[in-house]
Amino acid sequence: MDGNEKLPGTGRIEAFSDGVIAIIITIMILELKVPAESITHGSFTGVVRELGPNLLVYALSFLIVAIMLLNHHSIMRVAPHATSALYWWNANLLFWMSLIPLATAAFGEAPEEPLAVACYGAVLFCNAVSFTLLLRHAGTLAPPDPALAAYNRRNNMKSAMFTALYGLSVPLAYVSVVISIVIFVTVAMAYFLPSRMPGER
Amino acid sequence: MDGNEKLPGTGRIEAFSDGVIAIIITIMILELKVPAESITHGSFTGVVRELGPNLLVYALSFLIVAIMLLNHHSIMRVAPHATSALYWWNANLLFWMSLIPLATAAFGEAPEEPLAVACYGAVLFCNAVSFTLLLRHAGTLAPPDPALAAYNRRNNMKSAMFTALYGLSVPLAYVSVVISIVIFVTVAMAYFLPSRMPGER
Amino acid sequence: MDGNEKLPGTGRIEAFSDGVIAIIITIMILELKVPAESITHGSFTGVVRELGPNLLVYALSFLIVAIMLLNHHSIMRVAPHATSALYWWNANLLFWMSLIPLATAAFGEAPEEPLAVACYGAVLFCNAVSFTLLLRHAGTLAPPDPALAAYNRRNNMKSAMFTALYGLSVPLAYVSVVISIVIFVTVAMAYFLPSRMPGER
Amino acid sequence: MDGNEKLPGTGRIEAFSDGVIAIIITIMILELKVPAESITHGSFTGVVRELGPNLLVYALSFLIVAIMLLNHHSIMRVAPHATSALYWWNANLLFWMSLIPLATAAFGEAPEEPLAVACYGAVLFCNAVSFTLLLRHAGTLAPPDPALAAYNRRNNMKSAMFTALYGLSVPLAYVSVVISIVIFVTVAMAYFLPSRMPGER
Repeated sequence: MDGNEKLPGTGRIEAFSDGVIAIIITIMILELKVPAESITHGSFTGVVRELGPNLLVYALSFLIVAIMLLNHHSIMRVAPHATSALYWWNANLLFWMSLIPLATAAFGEAPEEPLAVACYGAVLFCNAVSFTLLLRHAGTLAPPDPALAAYNRRNNMKSAMFTALYGLSVPLAYVSVVISIVIFVTVAMAYFLPSRMPGER
Repeated sequence: MDGNEKLPGTGRIEAFSDGVIAIIITIMILELKVPAESITHGSFTGVVRELGPNLLVYALSFLIVAIMLLNHHSIMRVAPHATSALYWWNANLLFWMSLIPLATAAFGEAPEEPLAVACYGAVLFCNAVSFTLLLRHAGTLAPPDPALAAYNRRNNMKSAMFTALYGLSVPLAYVSVVISIVIFVTVAMAYFLPSRMPGER
Repeated sequence: MDGNEKLPGTGRIEAFSDGVIAIIITIMILELKVPAESITHGSFTGVVRELGPNLLVYALSFLIVAIMLLNHHSIMRVAPHATSALYWWNANLLFWMSLIPLATAAFGEAPEEPLAVACYGAVLFCNAVSFTLLLRHAGTLAPPDPALAAYNRRNNMKSAMFTALYGLSVPLAYVSVVISIVIFVTVAMAYFLPSRMPGER
Repeated sequence: MDGNEKLPGTGRIEAFSDGVIAIIITIMILELKVPAESITHGSFTGVVRELGPNLLVYALSFLIVAIMLLNHHSIMRVAPHATSALYWWNANLLFWMSLIPLATAAFGEAPEEPLAVACYGAVLFCNAVSFTLLLRHAGTLAPPDPALAAYNRRNNMKSAMFTALYGLSVPLAYVSVVISIVIFVTVAMAYFLPSRMPGER
């Protein structure tokens, strides 16, 4: 803490990212409209029919954003300090994340329409690419560490595979939207497979 | 602070939760629409009639979210460090909390309709269950401490009782919405009974 | 930093308040609608006529919220640690602050209607009362300090006077909305008179 | 950390600014409406035609806000502690930043209308002026440092030039909107030219 010469930490990048991601999640809730008529008429099936698909797509997007945020935490722990380049790779990721609510609304609006599903897949693909680029840059900032290198290599491979899957989901939506939806759910689930944070027991 | 090997603290989980909860509260305000016609005609009773029920339901939800946030602070002080599991139990809670604005809007829309009241109760029930699960997990992370154990036990019992009450409010709404509303208000009020934070005078 | 026994700081209360206040400010922007027709027809006077009053009321509310936030910083520096009571007095303030966007929208909707101006004044009055209560409680937590006591006394007197003025603005709106508007602007301006933070040069 | 006498840091000003800026970015996303009909009819060209201009303007505004935030980080690192004046110069900047979503929506609504482009330019001009004023004040708080002085001088010159360009974009929009748009994009791009943070390698 030597005044003006201190190396800037990643604190503000993290805080800003958390803020944007928190709002991204909640913008998606704003898209969930109360089915006022079904509610006032006490029609349970009406509420389920109107709200159901949107709620499921919201839950999927919430899960995907939560996974990205958790991985974002890991990346920021890897980077020892903030640089302009790190800031911009991160801003690039946030830009693509900010399009997730839009893609979610489109998907929830027409879950059986190939175009809507392809848009959702395309946005996830751009997110995965941006994430990989951020991960790669953060890795170059960290001091060499064999344990971490192995962890990063595993992470990079995982990212590459999932990015490819998201990329495939765009054309496959025009074959069958079910295939693309299976890809979205599978990739999200795969993140629960053990890939512990370094420094965790 | 030994670089990459440091155990991750709960700071970012707390900051992110605070962000999401802050936005949840304020999404509820967005549901409060200015009764433009009554205002421009200077009709005080019109404003009260149109805005009254929504404002009361908003106040109740604000209180419930504020109680959850205060208890969230206590939980996070109990957990000595962040783990992936803690992150996910927390994300699970945030997901259910994010549905409170939707349930609040439904309840405010039709406060005398059993379905609306039951939806509100069901969302509070899911929140209470998620809260208990997070509390339980945080307890397993903390080092054994007799004073804290007693505090946690008391908290767990309270949580279980309130969860059961919220669960009952769902079917009871179809008997009488008044019973369910009494449950919501009673549980909220009960949290003001003394249950001091550990480390507080 | 001795694990579970540490006295909780005011950090999370501050962070949460900052989050809610940041969103309160920005909810007010959401009420500013683009006058689409005037814009597409290139009518400058149309834009000014449609957007003007709302923009002025927004600027006033922005100023009032910014003043409250600055004073909130001062209060939180006075309190040496967080307590449940401090949390609740703060939550009470945030509740009333959260109604400012609603009152701002009502005021911007009908700036010449006594009811709209009275509503705005009433919400500011409730905010001033809540603020005074929070200030008083934070003062009881702080260790006795003659310099700070004088500062607090001055602050308390100022708060009491401004609270009374906001209270008067409610009935006076029915005499003339101009008087109430003069009160709003005068009180806001008065905060720029020197009342330096303790510890500042 | 000597209790009440500590000099307030810039932490809360930064946190609050990050919060407001995070929300400003995301309010702009709310303006991006899903073209529901084109999506449900699977019309790709319809989606591009309806969403395209708004998406491009959003990307430009996102870039401009991200640049301002990065520079905001630099300013706050320069200021050694918070003062009331710093708070108010910062609040002034946030006020003008909060109008960017409105100007973005107007620009996206009618990208070929001089009035819309001039409004966008005028808001950017006010932002640039506010930014320069904040930068100048932060500089007076910092202890004299020759390296930093050179850095600040370069920054001040850059700010002045870009402010002038934004100012010119307002009348020039009535000559041709293309000129103003070229100015917006050029200034944004110019910020990627190397101007490293002090303390960065």
